[in-house]
Amino acid sequence: MSENYQGKRPRELGISFGVLPTGKNNAITDVKGVKVGQVTLIDDKKGMRTGVTAIVPHENNIFQHKVPAGIFLGNAFGKMVGYPQVKELGNIETPIVLTNTLNLAAAIDGIIDYVFSFEENDSVQSVNCVVGETNDGAINDIRSRFVKREDVLKAILEAKDGPVEEGGVGAGTGTKAFNFKGGIGTASRKLPDNMGGYTVGVIVQSNFGGLLNINGVEVGKALGGFPYQKEIESADGSIMMIVATDAPLEARNLERVAKRAFMGLAKTGGVASNGSGDFVIAFSTNEDVRVDHKADKLAKQTMSVVRNDDMTPIFIATIEATEEAIINSLFAAHDTPTHDGRVIKALPLDKVMEMMREHKKISLQ
Amino acid sequence: MSENYQGKRPRELGISFGVLPTGKNNAITDVKGVKVGQVTLIDDKKGMRTGVTAIVPHENNIFQHKVPAGIFLGNAFGKMVGYPQVKELGNIETPIVLTNTLNLAAAIDGIIDYVFSFEENDSVQSVNCVVGETNDGAINDIRSRFVKREDVLKAILEAKDGPVEEGGVGAGTGTKAFNFKGGIGTASRKLPDNMGGYTVGVIVQSNFGGLLNINGVEVGKALGGFPYQKEIESADGSIMMIVATDAPLEARNLERVAKRAFMGLAKTGGVASNGSGDFVIAFSTNEDVRVDHKADKLAKQTMSVVRNDDMTPIFIATIEATEEAIINSLFAAHDTPTHDGRVIKALPLDKVMEMMREHKKISLQ
Amino acid sequence: MSENYQGKRPRELGISFGVLPTGKNNAITDVKGVKVGQVTLIDDKKGMRTGVTAIVPHENNIFQHKVPAGIFLGNAFGKMVGYPQVKELGNIETPIVLTNTLNLAAAIDGIIDYVFSFEENDSVQSVNCVVGETNDGAINDIRSRFVKREDVLKAILEAKDGPVEEGGVGAGTGTKAFNFKGGIGTASRKLPDNMGGYTVGVIVQSNFGGLLNINGVEVGKALGGFPYQKEIESADGSIMMIVATDAPLEARNLERVAKRAFMGLAKTGGVASNGSGDFVIAFSTNEDVRVDHKADKLAKQTMSVVRNDDMTPIFIATIEATEEAIINSLFAAHDTPTHDGRVIKALPLDKVMEMMREHKKISLQ
Amino acid sequence: MSENYQGKRPRELGISFGVLPTGKNNAITDVKGVKVGQVTLIDDKKGMRTGVTAIVPHENNIFQHKVPAGIFLGNAFGKMVGYPQVKELGNIETPIVLTNTLNLAAAIDGIIDYVFSFEENDSVQSVNCVVGETNDGAINDIRSRFVKREDVLKAILEAKDGPVEEGGVGAGTGTKAFNFKGGIGTASRKLPDNMGGYTVGVIVQSNFGGLLNINGVEVGKALGGFPYQKEIESADGSIMMIVATDAPLEARNLERVAKRAFMGLAKTGGVASNGSGDFVIAFSTNEDVRVDHKADKLAKQTMSVVRNDDMTPIFIATIEATEEAIINSLFAAHDTPTHDGRVIKALPLDKVMEMMREHKKISLQ
Repeated sequence: MSENYQGKRPRELGISFGVLPTGKNNAITDVKGVKVGQVTLIDDKKGMRTGVTAIVPHENNIFQHKVPAGIFLGNAFGKMVGYPQVKELGNIETPIVLTNTLNLAAAIDGIIDYVFSFEENDSVQSVNCVVGETNDGAINDIRSRFVKREDVLKAILEAKDGPVEEGGVGAGTGTKAFNFKGGIGTASRKLPDNMGGYTVGVIVQSNFGGLLNINGVEVGKALGGFPYQKEIESADGSIMMIVATDAPLEARNLERVAKRAFMGLAKTGGVASNGSGDFVIAFSTNEDVRVDHKADKLAKQTMSVVRNDDMTPIFIATIEATEEAIINSLFAAHDTPTHDGRVIKALPLDKVMEMMREHKKISLQ
Repeated sequence: MSENYQGKRPRELGISFGVLPTGKNNAITDVKGVKVGQVTLIDDKKGMRTGVTAIVPHENNIFQHKVPAGIFLGNAFGKMVGYPQVKELGNIETPIVLTNTLNLAAAIDGIIDYVFSFEENDSVQSVNCVVGETNDGAINDIRSRFVKREDVLKAILEAKDGPVEEGGVGAGTGTKAFNFKGGIGTASRKLPDNMGGYTVGVIVQSNFGGLLNINGVEVGKALGGFPYQKEIESADGSIMMIVATDAPLEARNLERVAKRAFMGLAKTGGVASNGSGDFVIAFSTNEDVRVDHKADKLAKQTMSVVRNDDMTPIFIATIEATEEAIINSLFAAHDTPTHDGRVIKALPLDKVMEMMREHKKISLQ
Repeated sequence: MSENYQGKRPRELGISFGVLPTGKNNAITDVKGVKVGQVTLIDDKKGMRTGVTAIVPHENNIFQHKVPAGIFLGNAFGKMVGYPQVKELGNIETPIVLTNTLNLAAAIDGIIDYVFSFEENDSVQSVNCVVGETNDGAINDIRSRFVKREDVLKAILEAKDGPVEEGGVGAGTGTKAFNFKGGIGTASRKLPDNMGGYTVGVIVQSNFGGLLNINGVEVGKALGGFPYQKEIESADGSIMMIVATDAPLEARNLERVAKRAFMGLAKTGGVASNGSGDFVIAFSTNEDVRVDHKADKLAKQTMSVVRNDDMTPIFIATIEATEEAIINSLFAAHDTPTHDGRVIKALPLDKVMEMMREHKKISLQ
Repeated sequence: MSENYQGKRPRELGISFGVLPTGKNNAITDVKGVKVGQVTLIDDKKGMRTGVTAIVPHENNIFQHKVPAGIFLGNAFGKMVGYPQVKELGNIETPIVLTNTLNLAAAIDGIIDYVFSFEENDSVQSVNCVVGETNDGAINDIRSRFVKREDVLKAILEAKDGPVEEGGVGAGTGTKAFNFKGGIGTASRKLPDNMGGYTVGVIVQSNFGGLLNINGVEVGKALGGFPYQKEIESADGSIMMIVATDAPLEARNLERVAKRAFMGLAKTGGVASNGSGDFVIAFSTNEDVRVDHKADKLAKQTMSVVRNDDMTPIFIATIEATEEAIINSLFAAHDTPTHDGRVIKALPLDKVMEMMREHKKISLQ
């Protein structure tokens, strides 16, 4: 009976991902200072099932204390805002906002409103908003552009640390993955001290396709049917992956970290189909690498960063946490009505757990 | 007396740029099918001096008949929207809209409104809006975000071919270049038949700095003063450069074309300073390379494209037209009041023309 | 008993990878016209265990009839030669040669010798050699630079179609993967007609690390031991992945194909560690997209290419074939002595097959 | 009479470039620690006119003390070796060697020989050689591949500081630019203290085309003839540009510096034609940003780097020094016989100086 599984995360059910231990909440918020805020917009009479998820890198004025960041364009059939400046300057100066494809404008205006709300930002005339999106139009009546700038501001202002709600919430309210209901998922890894002791956290907005693979079990193949053509053809969609770490990394190594989230995506059966907007944004919360907006002229930036040679464990943590965050997003989702009268089913946890057991992939219970 | 020069384009005054002939109007609209629309927003009581310039690639539904495109990030301290998808898919599916840094949201919503206005686009749920911006905050009270989506829609709908208004209009209403009033500028080149016979057109929104160089004459050095530190320190700013051509080019070669506009920028004394958002978008209007949104499954795209070996003349045309478009933007500008009570002076044409004569750079008159 | 398994490919043993059918030989040579040549250099008295693998894209003069190509830099701690020109021009004009890290020079000279051997190339003064490498120094006394240009020329000249020898041969003679003996591996996929009917072939030179995963079974985790730190720390190494297809693709879409091989790598447990040189080169053999060196001036190139919208099946074929090629390279390898008196063990096929059976991953037998 | 000008650098003749002061020798060696070594190979009976130029970043073992570096691919019709690893890891671990297009192999082997000559490098098995090239086949019988690894080793070992020989020496022995004899050129800038006080040095191997522009005077246009078609069509060729600075810069900002050299190229009339291999390599010699090969595990790298906001003066210095280095290479060249019995003329200094005077571009005399 699926009742036994509902509301439980895969890890609680004995499914593991990789070899590294998780952080306390197995969430991006395990990276100290990172907060997540979500606004969920549901009104089935209007066909509205969408929302906003905001990732806030630290507790201070981010514009004044920018965080180094790197972005990887997996498959860039997507509308992410803010990439060029992050690539050039190596940092992010706003919270990261996720929403649906057609509500970029609301996200941008909401972020600017947020930046302008700080007195210290009184003279700011230029803001590089970082906005990710996936297309939730299969469930949400996306052309109505339901999200308003106030929703975005609210998601940022109400962001909090601790456990993060997963599944059909926030920017994941209307998303779909592997032909099941997708949504928000998160996970984290804490490296042993002899690998640096850093924490890596990931949050995803899953809305993509492929042949679902859960810890090596070809669930998609089993639930589909020969010749899987439907799965292959409906593989389109997108995924936004956000990686946070407290490791002191410069932009170049954060780009490398971002690329590893794409490997985690691959392990779940994602194929980065033509129509998919698969983006990864990685940032470091470490105070030592922050960039002060108002530094003195000619003052150098002094920092102590992880060397290339010590990056591999951080890469592995990123792969593992991304894979788990994606699967978490599926396990947390529920059957969901669409704006045009269909229902997108949640992953059938009974069948999945049966398959996991058959393939000896349950390590608890 | 400057009256003699006011309202004249450099070429009319005997200043030439390069060796290739111009198109009919020496404007981006010399590329058949390209239209430009501009909305100028001025209300000095409100501190409003800003606007919108829309470049429409062809006369049909662009979303349904996408144009191949390539983008070059010169110095990417800027907020251009739409880059990742253009990079991935190699095409543009909307008009290109230029405005100020803080009005991206209005631009995005206006473009989506435009796309949705076509009945044929009824089922469209995903639009990759291409928006460029520069920061007109020195003149315009940019934090007021004056541009509305209606202004953007209007600029697109009213776009027309023929001569293009230059200087402080549209997205150039509040911009500043080389410490003088900048704005919109345009130019074109028509290749001789034995170089392919193609037309290349450029339009720019000039808002950057450096040491102004007009056809080799170091105007900035002469008008400034040793040690030019003010010029160097105030070099920040941005420039959007849009290149259109009727040459049948695929995205890869359009990216190469885009890179050459950056060389044209260099010839005017631009330095791509740290704070500059220097972007180039190049697209082909040639019908043979358009991408139909509703092609049949498995139908291949058949096209005849210019070979690598024949690209050099197109590169040269791009360099020349960009250099001229930038200088054109300065010659067309007027003294302009700022939102905080100063005045940004236009280029002192008397002095400039005197210098041009002294350096034997006037080929007419 | 491993005798039962030795010499058999995973697929023969009932291990499958993905959902698409293979080509005739499940090898890169299933792509019509592609040939592979290998020179194996072994002399244990000298500490020599290295070699050359050449991939020849088609049967004619490649310099005169270039093939479109795209390269993806996975983790670029590697010395691949030829990348910039392929990126710029979108094509390859020589066979692709794989060898060890310190023998690039021999590879370059051997390729030039080959190009110069064609009378038609008499006036050629510029050759963009494409050379990949991995570091076989754990087995081979790599500092001796054993490979000579003659070996490279021989590998190219003796290239042939049909089945490809796998394991410790050619450029894979001295390589190591997942702490076991690695080497050359190959696989292919043939798309159903309603997905285009194209063939995709992959060949790899495996020399990297991570936590080995065979069709979802965590072999590395099982054969290692908690906390897997040895595996994580010794994850360095490299892999060259070459993808050939008969689909008519331009360079931009071949870059996208190349990126998908990186996803196949991820599925085997590769982590793209800091010290890994993970490169993918993808090319199309389709005659319709070849670039003639001696085209007439201003003659356009006419071609019919696969549209973006039809790329997903080709992406999936690439992921599957890469994953299988890597595992094939491990299954084909044998215990191998090192230049400094150790032995690198082959994958323990008994144990592996036992694990595969336990996890219900054997579909035959 | 050209005798008056021969052997003099443009600056000595009153031609200036930009506004910033030069370093002591107006050479890349003004950057402390940088040495240049050149081997010139001439034997007209064999048709041999080629050579090697080595740029050595500092006086110690470079492999053990790597320098941060960034590379910009201007137009990448060229064979530069080493790009991918520099891009990935952000540093260079060998001297940079320039030679002709077909002698990459000799350069690679020579660099490896040099690295192996250090006892401290005894266990090194992997070397990322950085080699640039241009095609000197118009003068040199390039297919004979005259350069040997010993020549390369010699150029590195004999590198010295102080003034650098320019014109037809080293890797510039057989090169051609703007249809005149090209070669090696160098220049430098020393920033005022209130801009950071850093030195930027550039060395070029000029072998490209376009419409020559000397400090704004269109020399190419004047020396050519309407319609300049010959110049446009023969614009092919290449240029390697190496930028050194003592400013403490990380790889990301060095890539940005490298891009500015491309702007300096534009100012000389270079057009980055289709057939041109225009590459820029920028590195920092500052000890504070060097990367030690043998750092302790988990030891962070502590460094103090120039902030983005202070980069603009370094960009300007790079543009100016590159422009001047290119023109220097032309002024220093002599008429040179070709392997097939023609003569490539040096720039006609009499005519050029007359033009410079006519256009009031001589500030001395």
